[in-house]
Amino acid sequence: MYIPTFDDVRAAHERVKPWIHRTPVLTSAFFDALTGAELLFKCENFQKAGAFKVRGASNAVFGLSRDKAKYGVASHSSGNHALSLSYAAGRRGIKATVVMPRTAPDAKKDAVRGYGGIVLECEPSTAAREAMLEEVVDETGADFVHPYNDDRVIAGQGTCSLELHEDVGPLDAVVAPIGGGGMISGTCLTMSALSPQTKIYAAEPKNADDVYRSVREGRIVEDDAPQTVADGLKVSLRPRTWHFVSNYVADVLLVTEEEIIETMYLVWQRMKIVIEPSSAVALAAILKNRNLFIGKRVGVIFTGGNVDLTKLPWMQTNNLEK
Amino acid sequence: MYIPTFDDVRAAHERVKPWIHRTPVLTSAFFDALTGAELLFKCENFQKAGAFKVRGASNAVFGLSRDKAKYGVASHSSGNHALSLSYAAGRRGIKATVVMPRTAPDAKKDAVRGYGGIVLECEPSTAAREAMLEEVVDETGADFVHPYNDDRVIAGQGTCSLELHEDVGPLDAVVAPIGGGGMISGTCLTMSALSPQTKIYAAEPKNADDVYRSVREGRIVEDDAPQTVADGLKVSLRPRTWHFVSNYVADVLLVTEEEIIETMYLVWQRMKIVIEPSSAVALAAILKNRNLFIGKRVGVIFTGGNVDLTKLPWMQTNNLEK
Repeated sequence: MYIPTFDDVRAAHERVKPWIHRTPVLTSAFFDALTGAELLFKCENFQKAGAFKVRGASNAVFGLSRDKAKYGVASHSSGNHALSLSYAAGRRGIKATVVMPRTAPDAKKDAVRGYGGIVLECEPSTAAREAMLEEVVDETGADFVHPYNDDRVIAGQGTCSLELHEDVGPLDAVVAPIGGGGMISGTCLTMSALSPQTKIYAAEPKNADDVYRSVREGRIVEDDAPQTVADGLKVSLRPRTWHFVSNYVADVLLVTEEEIIETMYLVWQRMKIVIEPSSAVALAAILKNRNLFIGKRVGVIFTGGNVDLTKLPWMQTNNLEK
Repeated sequence: MYIPTFDDVRAAHERVKPWIHRTPVLTSAFFDALTGAELLFKCENFQKAGAFKVRGASNAVFGLSRDKAKYGVASHSSGNHALSLSYAAGRRGIKATVVMPRTAPDAKKDAVRGYGGIVLECEPSTAAREAMLEEVVDETGADFVHPYNDDRVIAGQGTCSLELHEDVGPLDAVVAPIGGGGMISGTCLTMSALSPQTKIYAAEPKNADDVYRSVREGRIVEDDAPQTVADGLKVSLRPRTWHFVSNYVADVLLVTEEEIIETMYLVWQRMKIVIEPSSAVALAAILKNRNLFIGKRVGVIFTGGNVDLTKLPWMQTNNLEK
């Protein structure tokens, strides 16, 4: 198993730069006052295809040799990796096939098709999506770009905190949401090289707390088909991301569905930006654990902004855990 | 009647700088492709108190002598001027009383109170709000800061295009929404001094087309209590804003309620930012009049981002004109 290095992050950044945005870092007097911390929000909701995942996907797609590229790429994804892979493949002019859970937001499926990607729907479980993907790869010879258990993808995601570090300098902590662990792994990779004193916190929905349990038990605990409004965070760790989580993450912080939705609402209302529920998880964890962050300079990764605007969670009481 | 000059805009900028954000100018590959123009979006939705109105309100509040300031300030407003005046008064530590139509979004009334402002509710007509305001001023001696027919306010609003011009250089056109005409007047004031070749277009809801009719008839036409989702644009011109509109505006472009709502939705979905319906009016006018703007560098003022997130217009079919 190849574990990517910081040199891979640097190379990824050169490779993906023409295809991604250097996203802005925003601040908020409101949230600084609420938390007592200095928060620096890396806004990947403004990223191409609406999420940080385009970094890893572009690194994989544009790193393929011409011979391999002609068979296209394939993956499974809860949404944003699907979008990102389709976007990157479209830019390179190759085919992308993505297996998506039938429960993924329609807005995401439509957007994948909008970028020219082919959507295959499966049942909403990790097992189901992996089985269908295997079939696709066998039939087409496409290069499988795993949404996170892939060294090219992890190196690509590491470019996000590279930019953050370049733009704002040393941080006491970085907080990012965790699903399969791609963003957190990239963050660990970059920060352990550039700023080893920066603590990395992974924020996770209580309803999908497999990473929290994995860290407690010292092994990958899987959670098939958990229910959370943070639809990007339902998947489980894999060996490459477990490597980074188990070696570098200071702690895993859990938040409830209500806390995620309330935080998302507050961000829209106060910062006037559209973030998806998964993005709100990191800030919700800071609001819940003020003592960890008070007086500190804290990087917060807003991972994406792809939301079905006709189905907002604060209008759907069934999403609220009581 | 004193008509403010560009020197007043320069002085206003120095005065208000400590109290406002220098808001970013965003671009969008999506909307550039859709319009064939190069669009530069001045994002006053990220402004303090959520709208450009804080520029004019701060200029008035911080320009008061100490003797006058002790009686506080008062105004009537469809929402954002109320917020902005309360914000500015709070920063100076003086009282703000605002007369608001009872139909204004609850989010705005709550936010006014959150800044320490006093809300008095009136019927939703220009006549009703002006009558109640007169009473307040008579009783308290407060300084009346009209939301737009006030040279201090117009000079303050002119700081918005001053920043835009400083940040992006010469523009072929600027498009801004028009209600009472404060933003458009400030834009005319600044652009006629810095870049007289830049055409200024006012964008207006068809359902509240009093400015369109005023320009056609060569006099101020009033429209009491028009119905439009763009709640910031229901008010009528007054002499100071009519001066700028009649002398400098290239044309008034009308858009339907459906076009406003569709454009607002597209901006949220594609740019991942929260803008209020009034903000969408300018971009809707560009989308509707592509021929005027194709191949041009066009400044677009997103005037504010104060929305009741639980009542979004694309979920309320009664807001759609069929």
